[in-house]
Amino acid sequence: MNLKKLAQELNLSFSTVSKALRDSHEISSSTKSRVIAKANELNYQVNPLASSFRKQKTKTIALIIPEVVNDFFGPVINGIESIAQEKGYHVLIYMTHEDMEKEIAIFKLLQSGRVDGIMLSLSEQTCDIKHLQELKERGIPLILFDRITDQLEVAKITTDNCDGGIKATEHLIERGCKRIAFLAISKRVSVSTGRMKGYLEALKKHSMNQPDDMIVCCDGDDRKNKELIKKLLTRKDRPDGIFASVETLAISTYEVCEELKLNIPRDLKVIAFSNSYLAALLNPSLTAIRQPAFEMGREAAAILVNLVEKKESRFRNDKTVIKSQLIVRNSTR
Amino acid sequence: MNLKKLAQELNLSFSTVSKALRDSHEISSSTKSRVIAKANELNYQVNPLASSFRKQKTKTIALIIPEVVNDFFGPVINGIESIAQEKGYHVLIYMTHEDMEKEIAIFKLLQSGRVDGIMLSLSEQTCDIKHLQELKERGIPLILFDRITDQLEVAKITTDNCDGGIKATEHLIERGCKRIAFLAISKRVSVSTGRMKGYLEALKKHSMNQPDDMIVCCDGDDRKNKELIKKLLTRKDRPDGIFASVETLAISTYEVCEELKLNIPRDLKVIAFSNSYLAALLNPSLTAIRQPAFEMGREAAAILVNLVEKKESRFRNDKTVIKSQLIVRNSTR
Repeated sequence: MNLKKLAQELNLSFSTVSKALRDSHEISSSTKSRVIAKANELNYQVNPLASSFRKQKTKTIALIIPEVVNDFFGPVINGIESIAQEKGYHVLIYMTHEDMEKEIAIFKLLQSGRVDGIMLSLSEQTCDIKHLQELKERGIPLILFDRITDQLEVAKITTDNCDGGIKATEHLIERGCKRIAFLAISKRVSVSTGRMKGYLEALKKHSMNQPDDMIVCCDGDDRKNKELIKKLLTRKDRPDGIFASVETLAISTYEVCEELKLNIPRDLKVIAFSNSYLAALLNPSLTAIRQPAFEMGREAAAILVNLVEKKESRFRNDKTVIKSQLIVRNSTR
Repeated sequence: MNLKKLAQELNLSFSTVSKALRDSHEISSSTKSRVIAKANELNYQVNPLASSFRKQKTKTIALIIPEVVNDFFGPVINGIESIAQEKGYHVLIYMTHEDMEKEIAIFKLLQSGRVDGIMLSLSEQTCDIKHLQELKERGIPLILFDRITDQLEVAKITTDNCDGGIKATEHLIERGCKRIAFLAISKRVSVSTGRMKGYLEALKKHSMNQPDDMIVCCDGDDRKNKELIKKLLTRKDRPDGIFASVETLAISTYEVCEELKLNIPRDLKVIAFSNSYLAALLNPSLTAIRQPAFEMGREAAAILVNLVEKKESRFRNDKTVIKSQLIVRNSTR
C-alpha cells in the first residue's frame, strides 16, 4: 500500500491525499477525515506515510514535560536548547501538569506533522501508552527521557536511578541511620520506582529491616504531602534518616522538621535527588544526588535530531544512562 | 503598493510572491531573496504584508528569554503556557544567553511568518533595537516583558521595579542600615536600572549619603561578581546593608559572607528581588521582593493573543505594571 494507491482508492489526487495527511490548511476537514479513515481502514503502512511527512521538514521539535518550575527541567531545557541552536531547530514546549488527558491532547495536536520529532517525560498519571504507540506508528520520532516506560520501544535517556538510590541509602547507613524512610512521588513514575529499587537493594545488602510503612507515597499536593511526612515523623518509631526521591519532598521535610522542632542532621538525616544551586545554601545544606540534567537534555535532543535527519535508525530501542553524583553536605553530617 | 503590484514589478505570479514572503519551501531561496529585496526597495507597506502573513495563522507564539534556569523565568513560562493551553496556541522557546547577536539571529528566523506573535525579555547586551523595529514594521505583534525598552512603541508588561526598589531600600533603612549598597546586573537592563532608581529615591528621601562606589555593577560571571562583592565587603567603610537587584547576586553575597565570616543579618542585612520557593529555607532565610512572575507571563500571553486575533489594536503602546510584594524574613532581622 502506498500513497498513490491510497489516492486511487479515495478517487482523489496524489497531492490532495498527501496534503490531507499533512493536515494542510488547503484541504477541507471533511476531506481530511475521509482520507484518514481510509488510510486507517487499509492499514496504510507507516513508512510511506512517515516519508510523506518527512518530505516537508518543519525543523521543529517538541518538548513535553510535566512541570517547568523545577530544579531538574530548567537545566534540561538549557541542554535541549543548546543542541537546537547548534543544529538550527526550533523547540516547542508543552506541559502536562501530571495529567494524562493533557498529555494525550498534546499528542493529538502534534500528530499532524507540526513537528519533526518529540521528546517526552511522562506525566505522573500516565498509565496507558496508546497515544505514544499511535505517534510511533505514524513514523514521528519519539524520545523518552527521565520518566520513561519500558513498554515502548524507542530511544530512552535516564540517569542511573537505581544506582543513585543505592548510593543515597548506603550514605545514610554509613552515617549511622538505623531506620531509613523513602519518600516516593508515585508508584507509576519510573524515576521514583527506580530510586526505590535502589533503596530496597541497599537495605537488603546491609541486612536492614524493610518495613512497608517506611515507604511513603507522596503523590498529593504540598499540603497533603506535608501531612504524610508529619505523620511519619511523629510516629513512636520515627525514622532517623529520610531519602527523598525528589527535591520538593526534601523541602517539605525541612518545613515539617521546623514545625516539629526536629534538628537536621541531629534528629534526622536527609538526602534527596536535587539539582538546585540553592541546595548548598539551605539550612542545613542539603546532601544530594545530583542528576546530569543539562547533559540529559543535550543527549535527548542530539539523538532526536539524528533520528529526524535519518543519521540513525528510527527503530532505535536502547537506553542511554548518564551517571548521577553524590554531593555530601550538612544534612547528613 | 500592494502585493499584486509587487508581483507585477517582479514579473512573478501573485501566488509565488505571497509564498516567498511566507518563506514557503516551494520557493527557491534565490527567488525569495529577489522578492524580499524588491519589497524592501519599494518600501512595500506594512499592512498588506502583515495581512498576507496573517491569512495563514500558525497558532504559534514565540517566547524569547535571556535564560531559563532562574527563579523568575520558570513561573513566567508557566503563566504563558496556561494562556496558550486555554486559547489553543503553541509556544516556541528561545534563549539569547544575554547575547544581542543571538537575539538578532532568533528574530531573523521568526521574520518569515513562523509565528503569529512574539514575547521578548531583552538580553543584557541589547543596545540597538533595529531588529525589533524591523519585526514591528512587518506587522508581527511583539510584546516586551520584564526587561523592556521605552524606545519601542509596543505593549509592555513589567513589575513596579522603582516602587519595589524604594520598598526594599526603606526596609533596610527601617532595620537600621546606614550604608546601603546596591548590586546591579547591568546599566542597560531596565529591571536593574528601575530598581536602582528606587534605591536612589529612597536614599534621597531619607537624606542619606549616596556614594557612587556603593553601586556595584555585577555584569560578569559568577566568579567575577563574587570578587566584586568581596572587594565591597572588605572595604574599611563596608556596607551594613545590601540590596541585590536579582536573586543570584544575593546568593553570591551569602557565599562571600560565609567566606569572610560575616554574619547575616548581624554584620550585614540582605534583601533581593527573588521568586525562589527556596528563599524561605536559606540560611538565613532571605527577605525578598517577590515579583508576580506567573501573572506577568499570563498577562503577556493574553495581550499577545488578543493582538494576534485582532481583538486589540496592534499599535497598542502601553505599560501594564503588576505589583511586587515585600516578604520579610531573617536576612534583615
